[in-house]
Amino acid sequence: MPGRVRILLAYQGGRYSGWQVQPEKVTIQGLLQEAYRRMTGRETVMQAAARTDAGVHAERQLVCFDNPSRHPPDKLLEGLNHHLPEDVAIIGAETVEEGFDPRRRAAGKHYRYVIWNRRIRPVFSRELCWHIRQPLQLHVMNQAGAILVGEHDFSAFRASGCTASSPVRRLDYLAWRQDGPFVVCDAWGRAFLKQMVRNMVGTLVEVGRGRLPPEAVSEILAARDRRRAGPTAPARGLCLVKVYLDEEEYRADAAIPRAGPEAAADILPLRSL
Amino acid sequence: MPGRVRILLAYQGGRYSGWQVQPEKVTIQGLLQEAYRRMTGRETVMQAAARTDAGVHAERQLVCFDNPSRHPPDKLLEGLNHHLPEDVAIIGAETVEEGFDPRRRAAGKHYRYVIWNRRIRPVFSRELCWHIRQPLQLHVMNQAGAILVGEHDFSAFRASGCTASSPVRRLDYLAWRQDGPFVVCDAWGRAFLKQMVRNMVGTLVEVGRGRLPPEAVSEILAARDRRRAGPTAPARGLCLVKVYLDEEEYRADAAIPRAGPEAAADILPLRSL
Repeated sequence: MPGRVRILLAYQGGRYSGWQVQPEKVTIQGLLQEAYRRMTGRETVMQAAARTDAGVHAERQLVCFDNPSRHPPDKLLEGLNHHLPEDVAIIGAETVEEGFDPRRRAAGKHYRYVIWNRRIRPVFSRELCWHIRQPLQLHVMNQAGAILVGEHDFSAFRASGCTASSPVRRLDYLAWRQDGPFVVCDAWGRAFLKQMVRNMVGTLVEVGRGRLPPEAVSEILAARDRRRAGPTAPARGLCLVKVYLDEEEYRADAAIPRAGPEAAADILPLRSL
Repeated sequence: MPGRVRILLAYQGGRYSGWQVQPEKVTIQGLLQEAYRRMTGRETVMQAAARTDAGVHAERQLVCFDNPSRHPPDKLLEGLNHHLPEDVAIIGAETVEEGFDPRRRAAGKHYRYVIWNRRIRPVFSRELCWHIRQPLQLHVMNQAGAILVGEHDFSAFRASGCTASSPVRRLDYLAWRQDGPFVVCDAWGRAFLKQMVRNMVGTLVEVGRGRLPPEAVSEILAARDRRRAGPTAPARGLCLVKVYLDEEEYRADAAIPRAGPEAAADILPLRSL
């Protein structure tokens, strides 16, 4: 049954050079394509909804590929997992229509950034978070984060190698919260520039350390100059949590208000901090 | 200020041959003694409350040592952590009286065993749990576990290399619970035989798979024959959660009833499953 297949993929990115195939590097795309070749003896090209950078993790990356083999999705799930290393796993597989493009069909994405905010270093979570010893002030990090929500030219938070044609993106929702020893940032947007989440996090951490007043983020955003923003937060703290295909589900999770001022007044004050 | 020091230690045990120093092996005790030597130029012997096996983890192991150097506990914490690998960390340090023996002073210990009970393998928790694809029946595992609670000859659950003079131990409390994709066993006792928790878990998992009726655990216990019990559960699922020094705190956490039939009736039915 040849056709097109979509899979949900989890990976711990620490040992890999990101999603995209590169010569001489071990990448998630390369591992998947090699697993498909070993299992079926055929070639295919894997397409992801989000091209995660080196060291970044994913809980539910969305990947699509044409399947010239006779294996149905559930056999592909078992067979590809057998040929993948233990820090990469397919957690779901199903048939989709011809030509299904995960990047164009994505209604939005949810990224999470995790900081371990204790004096003593983390032991069990050490590969999944950024260790910051100094206590962070969440209140001002949320004040500064609220400035970034909305449609803006995000040139100040764009990596130098970014190939996107426009620096304009809409950040739909961003919030910091404390979870025991962890300080966690959740961000929702339809699309992000290269290293945009890590650059926003690096800048908001400067605010949380008290090195930058929250209002300074307005000026940094307006200046559109990467050199004025904070450092890029380490890759190991970042995880692509979910790629949304359903518009309504995305709008609900990203707290985008429905049309009409009443609904907006209802939702926004609750979720904007 | 020479004297005796006690530290709380966290470690992920996967790369190490357990607590106790052995020739040609990397052990937690060896790493700590080497870190002390590098930091202070002096020698000392580290004593742990529990000698964890190869591959077993600890959240709060209790370790004591004589400190012939002039460094106070907070400097030792910083300095030893600097010389320890990233999967071992001291999380607390304080002075104790001369001769304080962590094994003899321990009022009890809490161990936790974690199973990942989903068809798809774990990615982020893979080094901290046992992966069992077949759904486990917690109800019968708790029925069988209740048989083990109390003072018994635990020869059936004792590793062949165990050097304890008596096979009699008192298991104060054991319970299984579901936590999302995880199935978790918590066990409290004053002391355990070598591999006793992993052997109990391996046997209770046989019950949870439906290969053994819960009542069979009574016969296994009574037969005192290791060959009749289930396999030893893998080390990577086991963690020493806490060593208690305070008797009252231990009795409360381990749900040991106070004297008097009323109190017992009050607590036991709630906690025995």
